[in-house]
Amino acid sequence: MHVQCASITTIRRGVAMKSYLTMTREDLVREKYELSEEYDRLKARELSLDMSRGKPGADQLDLSVDMIDKFNSSISLKDGNNFDLRNYGLPDGTNESRELFASLFDVPSSNVIVGGNSSLNMMFDVISQLISHGAPGGVPWSKLPKVKFLCPCPGYDRHFSICEYFGIEMIPVEMNDDGPDMKEIEKYLTDEAVKGMWCVPKYSNPDGITYSDKVVRKIANLKPKANDFRVMWDNSYAVHHLSDTSDTLANIFEYCNQSGNDDMVIAFASTSKITFPGSGIAAVAASPANIGWLRKRISIQTIGPDKLNQLMHTNTFKNAEDIDAHMEKHAEILKPKFKAVLDALEEISKICTWRVPNGGYFVSVNTLNGCAKRVEELCGDAGVKLTPAGATFPYGKDEKDKNIRIAPTFPPVKELEQAMELFCLCVKIATVEKMLNKLS
Amino acid sequence: MHVQCASITTIRRGVAMKSYLTMTREDLVREKYELSEEYDRLKARELSLDMSRGKPGADQLDLSVDMIDKFNSSISLKDGNNFDLRNYGLPDGTNESRELFASLFDVPSSNVIVGGNSSLNMMFDVISQLISHGAPGGVPWSKLPKVKFLCPCPGYDRHFSICEYFGIEMIPVEMNDDGPDMKEIEKYLTDEAVKGMWCVPKYSNPDGITYSDKVVRKIANLKPKANDFRVMWDNSYAVHHLSDTSDTLANIFEYCNQSGNDDMVIAFASTSKITFPGSGIAAVAASPANIGWLRKRISIQTIGPDKLNQLMHTNTFKNAEDIDAHMEKHAEILKPKFKAVLDALEEISKICTWRVPNGGYFVSVNTLNGCAKRVEELCGDAGVKLTPAGATFPYGKDEKDKNIRIAPTFPPVKELEQAMELFCLCVKIATVEKMLNKLS
Repeated sequence: MHVQCASITTIRRGVAMKSYLTMTREDLVREKYELSEEYDRLKARELSLDMSRGKPGADQLDLSVDMIDKFNSSISLKDGNNFDLRNYGLPDGTNESRELFASLFDVPSSNVIVGGNSSLNMMFDVISQLISHGAPGGVPWSKLPKVKFLCPCPGYDRHFSICEYFGIEMIPVEMNDDGPDMKEIEKYLTDEAVKGMWCVPKYSNPDGITYSDKVVRKIANLKPKANDFRVMWDNSYAVHHLSDTSDTLANIFEYCNQSGNDDMVIAFASTSKITFPGSGIAAVAASPANIGWLRKRISIQTIGPDKLNQLMHTNTFKNAEDIDAHMEKHAEILKPKFKAVLDALEEISKICTWRVPNGGYFVSVNTLNGCAKRVEELCGDAGVKLTPAGATFPYGKDEKDKNIRIAPTFPPVKELEQAMELFCLCVKIATVEKMLNKLS
Repeated sequence: MHVQCASITTIRRGVAMKSYLTMTREDLVREKYELSEEYDRLKARELSLDMSRGKPGADQLDLSVDMIDKFNSSISLKDGNNFDLRNYGLPDGTNESRELFASLFDVPSSNVIVGGNSSLNMMFDVISQLISHGAPGGVPWSKLPKVKFLCPCPGYDRHFSICEYFGIEMIPVEMNDDGPDMKEIEKYLTDEAVKGMWCVPKYSNPDGITYSDKVVRKIANLKPKANDFRVMWDNSYAVHHLSDTSDTLANIFEYCNQSGNDDMVIAFASTSKITFPGSGIAAVAASPANIGWLRKRISIQTIGPDKLNQLMHTNTFKNAEDIDAHMEKHAEILKPKFKAVLDALEEISKICTWRVPNGGYFVSVNTLNGCAKRVEELCGDAGVKLTPAGATFPYGKDEKDKNIRIAPTFPPVKELEQAMELFCLCVKIATVEKMLNKLS
């Protein structure tokens, strides 16, 4: 991991290293002028590139077209029990798809419900159910004067949007290298209004951090004041490795079982970034009590999930091993893209920090405080769309205005290189502007 | 349509017509004994048949397997704008699927959102949104002391379950031959707590009634006290004809436009009983204001629907005409099944009433008051599962205990004939028991 340097310095190709921190006002003005000229030159390229969202590239999607081709009337459209999957039924999902996710979550398949195409939708629905009906034995959260959620950040903007939609107050919690700051979390849990917590425990969005065994165990052992406290365990990137030495995440359900906290965690995953985003299958894993509670809503909400899509998936993937083999192909495509981003960042290694992720979909860059929005603006004006600065924080507010999430997966390497050239330049401009501002 | 006779009489094959109403106690006891003997004989067959749910039969599902076979990498997996449908995006659904439903709803495609696999899920979500956030400009219904819904009945049990789940008080409204009793509805609408109404306007579940032009116009012209009153227009059976002279339903959106009630109606449909139940595509049609309102939730809830399933559908069906041609094949399969049920009912035409539906999925039978539960029980004990008596009414309570919904679509004709033989016998037994009870 790169750590921020005391001396804020920039490296320019063919240019001697200059310390922005020690530069005189005149030097900074001259530097800004030179950078602006380069900016105009890049802007003239009229780029139109998007590094804003964690979308797989077309070459990744090609990997799963075979799954569609293998799904036709030459295979049985029934399940192992001779149940016709073309018809209504099986509200928990097909047995085969529950087994597949059980293998991924490492839990019994009876603790898994496989739903529609979106794990985000399942998370939304769980929060919606907590709001309107409350947890098993609890009161509907809508009846409470205040509900708060802990949000380790930077984090996933769509989690935060769900809280905002339902009027749940978000409390940002610092992320450490091994997961969220557990001291901070334990402190907040003495407040009964704190009802839950978002976690992306593996290859976190956007930092690519995997929670350590110690942190997972601490989470499983939390003693929240609210007995309907829920950990939303969004394991979106469970198998999305980018390195040959992939991270390992402890099984939180085992630790919860040891600590008597079985009902505290609800886990989510999907094949969105394994097969097709939007056309994958999503699942939830939870304790028997929580599964029963979820069924109460699901049985009212729908007659059942799209079992043919589940069958299409299990016709190709039987278990976690099949998925792992498939994910290696994804990694081969993604590695050069992440390399392009990480290599480019070296040029600005003295004025920002980032982690080299072992997996996931992002590179999370921290600039000098107060520069992120300006970088986004400069990039946007020159045709490169970034995730809005602040989006990785509750209410879109990055107090330090320093975090930028780069999503390297969608554009081809060539375009990424162009985009990153611009990005690095914009970070330099924003940094010089910031220093000038300090001097004025 | 059959109407109930003043003289309650039964016809038995090879047995002279006997009037249960005028029978002496002794004759009724003898009759009951004879019916019981026949019941034991039928019970000995150890049937295991299900006429409880509106599930298509396997032969109907076979009609759409071709759609799966035609969906593979030999076709373009992009939309007309060259957008890769394998990836995230298009939260309103593909243009092509919106056009398809626009053609079915007879509205502009901009007024259509195509979602996941279940229109029931879309209805649930709309009610959920009204509860948690309220209609555009309105207060969340969860903040109100009381919310009531009008429920024309007999109706669809799953509509009623949604109301019950969200604590919405249901008011049963009588169904006439041309739709719900509008006088009754207008009367209730002076109550500001009455916030909505369920409608299955074409080939209604279970009666098979299509709302007349007059009724549709009256609904469009309602002046509810509550300005966030919503008509949940569940057009599930829009194209599900069973007769060569199919019913016609007026376009309620046109009438609403004329009456200035554009935002009052939200319509739903799906291909569940056109292609595959549970693996079809579902859609909502509504005014621009309501579509914008729906988008607010959808944009938080999900990144988008399963566009590959939408593409699979539009690769086979381009417009309403294609669907109509396909539905004729369904009708050919269903007609003999409905005929088997209707023919069998002739035997008990003097002790119950029913309508001959021009479409839809059910035959709705009304017994003598106080007999429906007993018929269900007798049938169940002898191996024929019926929709629970009362299910077609709010809270599962049929005050008159007389309505039974028969779903003829799933079992083969041979099994239907067996099931109906038992059903008719059970109606006779329940009727005789009822008469005996009256005499005692």
